[in-house]
Amino acid sequence: MLFHTPEKEDILKASERISSYVHNTPILTSRSLNQIAGCSIYFKCENLQKIGAFKARGAVNATLSLTEEQRKHGIATHSSGNHAQALAYAASIRGIKAYIVMPENAPPVKINAVKGYRAEIIFCKPSLESRESELKKVVEETSAYFIHPYNNYTVIAGQGTAAYEIYREIPDLDGLITPVGGGGLLSGSLLSTKYFSPQTEVFAGEPSGADDAYRSLQQGKIVPSIKPDTIADGLLTSLGDKTFRIIRENIKEIILVTDEQIISAMQLLWERMKIIVEPSGAVPFAALLKEKNRFAGRKIGIILSGGNVDLKKNFFK
Amino acid sequence: MLFHTPEKEDILKASERISSYVHNTPILTSRSLNQIAGCSIYFKCENLQKIGAFKARGAVNATLSLTEEQRKHGIATHSSGNHAQALAYAASIRGIKAYIVMPENAPPVKINAVKGYRAEIIFCKPSLESRESELKKVVEETSAYFIHPYNNYTVIAGQGTAAYEIYREIPDLDGLITPVGGGGLLSGSLLSTKYFSPQTEVFAGEPSGADDAYRSLQQGKIVPSIKPDTIADGLLTSLGDKTFRIIRENIKEIILVTDEQIISAMQLLWERMKIIVEPSGAVPFAALLKEKNRFAGRKIGIILSGGNVDLKKNFFK
Repeated sequence: MLFHTPEKEDILKASERISSYVHNTPILTSRSLNQIAGCSIYFKCENLQKIGAFKARGAVNATLSLTEEQRKHGIATHSSGNHAQALAYAASIRGIKAYIVMPENAPPVKINAVKGYRAEIIFCKPSLESRESELKKVVEETSAYFIHPYNNYTVIAGQGTAAYEIYREIPDLDGLITPVGGGGLLSGSLLSTKYFSPQTEVFAGEPSGADDAYRSLQQGKIVPSIKPDTIADGLLTSLGDKTFRIIRENIKEIILVTDEQIISAMQLLWERMKIIVEPSGAVPFAALLKEKNRFAGRKIGIILSGGNVDLKKNFFK
Repeated sequence: MLFHTPEKEDILKASERISSYVHNTPILTSRSLNQIAGCSIYFKCENLQKIGAFKARGAVNATLSLTEEQRKHGIATHSSGNHAQALAYAASIRGIKAYIVMPENAPPVKINAVKGYRAEIIFCKPSLESRESELKKVVEETSAYFIHPYNNYTVIAGQGTAAYEIYREIPDLDGLITPVGGGGLLSGSLLSTKYFSPQTEVFAGEPSGADDAYRSLQQGKIVPSIKPDTIADGLLTSLGDKTFRIIRENIKEIILVTDEQIISAMQLLWERMKIIVEPSGAVPFAALLKEKNRFAGRKIGIILSGGNVDLKKNFFK
């Protein structure tokens, strides 16, 4: 595991380490969306990634980086969403035990996906306090190794491999936009950009109903995410100290978008590209559409971070 | 235009002719769907095709095959769905006029897509009689060249290019399954199989609520599709004499599936592959799941024929 900000070499090694277990996802383009947006967009389809989200990258990188000693009692985390599935999947690669603390109101489809990888689920109340205290108990009882969903340098290096793959294929991007929740994908993307495509400006899209990262940048300190209210259910968490520092030092700007803008971007992606993107994954495209003028005529990469939605929900009334 | 059953050479020429205007769509695989189905499936993603469906192939092939004389007054057709968009798109390539007769109750999203290619829409009552009589009037008034949605050898040769692309990439398929409506995709696929992969058995999936092709095979003559009732709205039409003859001579079997089976196959495709497939496009996968045993352990190609759905509709209650 890394105990310093990932360097160029760490991202290259992560990319090699995870290559047999995660997809080098396709980068898709759409003439009609380019017309609507007024620029050239390269969509990195992490919705087509293993477990349906980029989180497979960080979880696999972290799990495969553990020594035999570290992993012998299994691994543990808390998550209501994609990191839970990602870690369960990563553990299954090495055949080690995974303990996942999940809120009791997590969607059944996510619970079943975690069970599908034979991870052990420990239910908790749907609050950060309950998640953390349950996790602490699990770790004390089992000696499992805790892998934080984002505030972990090895996880960050893993998430950075998505942007690295973009730059390998599309060398002259003017801009890159990712979503920001806890900041794992964003900080990994910022580091990859610094190392592999320093001329590219990196932006993040954030829901205005969960604008803690935006406010953290403004105030120069981590503002916790309290009672976030947005349809982008993957972006509810607060930044960690590691992700905050990397973001603060490297980002161009965070662009806030409303739920309405998120849904409308999501609908365009579903309709025109025929791919399923979850609300959180549509946030960067919503940010681009909101600020069309600043991106006009430029070459922009967008990370579609995930595609795990409850299909029973009717998003487009 | 062809006036005989397409030969090997005709499909090769079609493939070359349309190559700059349609996508060589990706062939995707999914470990979890293979596990569920108990065989190895290669999904040919025509839902990611131009205009969101394989119909772009036949329409472009037919339109580009017209002589200057034939196309000088434009082209015309009747269609409530994907062929309308496909022909409008094909006409836009050559900058010629397209007249599309559409039922007045066609979904607004399809009407707008046709308008987007600047085709002229002539509305008619939602019946085959009204469609045909309106089309006749249009052709008499404008001298536009009528391109039938499926009962046309040049269209059939164009649709056959999808299977041809599959065989070029996956040379040793045991089976191929397509949907059947009017029979254009199925008959084109049967011809490509005969020429490029004769050991592959070809099946079609058909909704039990629109089982006219199934009954036509049984009775040895075209049984018209009267009052079809299925969610697979692209498969409501009757076979034509050309498609019927090719199907009859070459098909292994038609497998009937209920709407419930279609929806459940469609949900698996959306959920596991994160791609949008319309009900008609999910019919072949539904057929495979229904007859799991016969396909067990084999290598099967499936054509996901289209992805044009009304997202406001809630399919997965």
